[in-house]
Amino acid sequence: MSEFVAGGGILNRRALLKGSGLGLAAGILAPGQAAEDWMMQSGEAPGRYGAQSKFADLHRERVGGHAFGAGAGSSSTPLQKLNGTITPNSLHFERHHSGIPAIDPDRHTLSIVGEVERPLRFSYEDLHAYPMETHVYFLECSGNSFRNSLKAAADLTAGSLSGLVSCAEWTGVPLHYLLDEAGVKNGANWVVGEGADAAALTRSVPMKYMLDNAMLAMYQNGEPIRPSQGYPMRLFIPGCEGNISVKWLQKLKVQATAAYSRDETSKYTDLLKDGTSEMFSLKMEVKSLITSPSGKMQLNRKGVYEISGLAWSGEGAISKVEVSADGGKSWAEAVLQSAPTALALTRFRIPWQWSGAPAMLQSRATDNKGNLQPTRAVARERYSSAGFYHYNGIQSWQVSANGAVRNVFA
Amino acid sequence: MSEFVAGGGILNRRALLKGSGLGLAAGILAPGQAAEDWMMQSGEAPGRYGAQSKFADLHRERVGGHAFGAGAGSSSTPLQKLNGTITPNSLHFERHHSGIPAIDPDRHTLSIVGEVERPLRFSYEDLHAYPMETHVYFLECSGNSFRNSLKAAADLTAGSLSGLVSCAEWTGVPLHYLLDEAGVKNGANWVVGEGADAAALTRSVPMKYMLDNAMLAMYQNGEPIRPSQGYPMRLFIPGCEGNISVKWLQKLKVQATAAYSRDETSKYTDLLKDGTSEMFSLKMEVKSLITSPSGKMQLNRKGVYEISGLAWSGEGAISKVEVSADGGKSWAEAVLQSAPTALALTRFRIPWQWSGAPAMLQSRATDNKGNLQPTRAVARERYSSAGFYHYNGIQSWQVSANGAVRNVFA
Repeated sequence: MSEFVAGGGILNRRALLKGSGLGLAAGILAPGQAAEDWMMQSGEAPGRYGAQSKFADLHRERVGGHAFGAGAGSSSTPLQKLNGTITPNSLHFERHHSGIPAIDPDRHTLSIVGEVERPLRFSYEDLHAYPMETHVYFLECSGNSFRNSLKAAADLTAGSLSGLVSCAEWTGVPLHYLLDEAGVKNGANWVVGEGADAAALTRSVPMKYMLDNAMLAMYQNGEPIRPSQGYPMRLFIPGCEGNISVKWLQKLKVQATAAYSRDETSKYTDLLKDGTSEMFSLKMEVKSLITSPSGKMQLNRKGVYEISGLAWSGEGAISKVEVSADGGKSWAEAVLQSAPTALALTRFRIPWQWSGAPAMLQSRATDNKGNLQPTRAVARERYSSAGFYHYNGIQSWQVSANGAVRNVFA
Repeated sequence: MSEFVAGGGILNRRALLKGSGLGLAAGILAPGQAAEDWMMQSGEAPGRYGAQSKFADLHRERVGGHAFGAGAGSSSTPLQKLNGTITPNSLHFERHHSGIPAIDPDRHTLSIVGEVERPLRFSYEDLHAYPMETHVYFLECSGNSFRNSLKAAADLTAGSLSGLVSCAEWTGVPLHYLLDEAGVKNGANWVVGEGADAAALTRSVPMKYMLDNAMLAMYQNGEPIRPSQGYPMRLFIPGCEGNISVKWLQKLKVQATAAYSRDETSKYTDLLKDGTSEMFSLKMEVKSLITSPSGKMQLNRKGVYEISGLAWSGEGAISKVEVSADGGKSWAEAVLQSAPTALALTRFRIPWQWSGAPAMLQSRATDNKGNLQPTRAVARERYSSAGFYHYNGIQSWQVSANGAVRNVFA
């Protein structure tokens, strides 16, 4: 196990292919252990609906309300407890502005109004007659990782810091079918989506996004989308900040200009260093973080670990993720899982041998448009210190000599 | 909407791209409807763990025990209520031989013994240091769809007939890392897996499968696998009948021959027409079925529907799915979602215009090795009438003039 490819113990990804093994397994000298009690009796019978193991203790993190009223708030995906790229629906992050409405799909309709030849209204059943598409896409809140834009590094888990990003297989009707049927008039360059929640969340989306790859999503990871994700239907604009993928979608208003709604002026606007603000910065930037080892974890032995994490970009597919164990002095390229999918989370992995000395773990992603994830300092260069959206700086995890892993600014 | 490409109303898949629309949406003449009650108050706050809508009523079907004892039995994925290709973990099919053990991962170990240079024992934590891979794979019980091999066609849903197949993103350690570390001796061509359930389910797997693409799966759709799927770890042999992907895996015994265990002699052996039986017919054959419209559904209007279904093959990727609405007299090629993935469920779709006359809906899949899904008669040619494993004949759904959809043999 000596094929180091970067400082701090990063190993060649082929180091483990030579059959030398990790030496972690115990040799078996004595006869096998006695059967455990769970083999002594029949287990639980098959059931109508499955549940997680009581030993797994999986739940969302930072579940909480905001100061703006009942039901407003968010919850985060526990990224450090997951592996692969799909987020189970029960653990997909949430961000609501006035809670989760309990909508009866038989009473819900979607209207297309405004600058169209034929205003239309669709029932849930009507929409099932249209051609659907299925794609794996990430969804990220524009406020994700905002704590890393603050002055002091919070000692939190990866999920609590950056878990306002999730990834699912979304199925629904491409918006162009519905807009074509309504007949968009010339010069109508925006579509304003409105939700059927008590906040009637309203966001403006450029028509070009709507006609490109936007969908009216009705299924998530195979099943009808959950109430917390917009049941019975939501807008889904891949690669863009989550809030424009309006949940519980009930109206699309086609018009010449953006709406400048409450939800896109009072928030989701970026405050810049020069005192101006930037609106409609919708695409989420290239980003990555190591999910294991990560904040609040404890390494209990020296030796080989798999460093693993997630990378994504609103501009396209991830082409490269580099990992450093010495705080950015040297980098090695990680393995990307299978074929990286555009606009989806991509899992990266690289073996690492921990010597027991302090180490600083970082990752930086590059997408297929050539965008490179910036350092923390560069990520905040353009922004006012009061701005906190769209943070995509490199995440640094400090590994102490005692094995504790902690979020730091580097 | 007149571009028919096969009999019985099958439409060209581009028919809907011309902007003519389906004509299902209501024109909006009056002002919008009054706001529904769910907009009049804040909804439910964000939570630790998400749940489905009370209106969705999603659950497994045919949940039941077998005559062989407590905990033995199965449950089926409700295929007709799902869309896309991923099966949510709570709805993945189950088949247990002595129920679901409640295993503490800190007490569970995996041993590799038999014809190896170094017998090894791994803890759950040890295994996390090894390189993992992530792949989307289907899993199918070899008894799936067995009711269609019987004498009379059962009037059941798609899920109840053929829901012992599911699809998930599986993450785990490729078996070759662990077998290489143990050091497989020459001539050891089989690996016998044993589960830590009360049945100690035991199956023999050819070494070539183990060294090709088998994995020790520890995560399913992102989260630690569920107890019903083998928590904390299971064997996963892609493309093969589900029972050899031994759940709750505790031992791999390397040996020269198969074990001829109880579980592979008393069952999972195919009875042939000539009186002999075939063992270790492990690969699942090319197969498809339409999930919508499908059994027990009711069409409430004439007009355009999306025919949609699933196809898969244990031999590779799906290259083509053809759909017929006239009981196989004419066929048209369906659209496959994105890039079909080898050894995963593939979603197919094609538009269909129902005239109100009786119709017979069928699908037939072809994989990239050239295997074509057979008719029901051809599918059973080799087998004894007492055999019921590996049924992959074409599924026929009869649509009556009153809109009722029913399983039939054609």
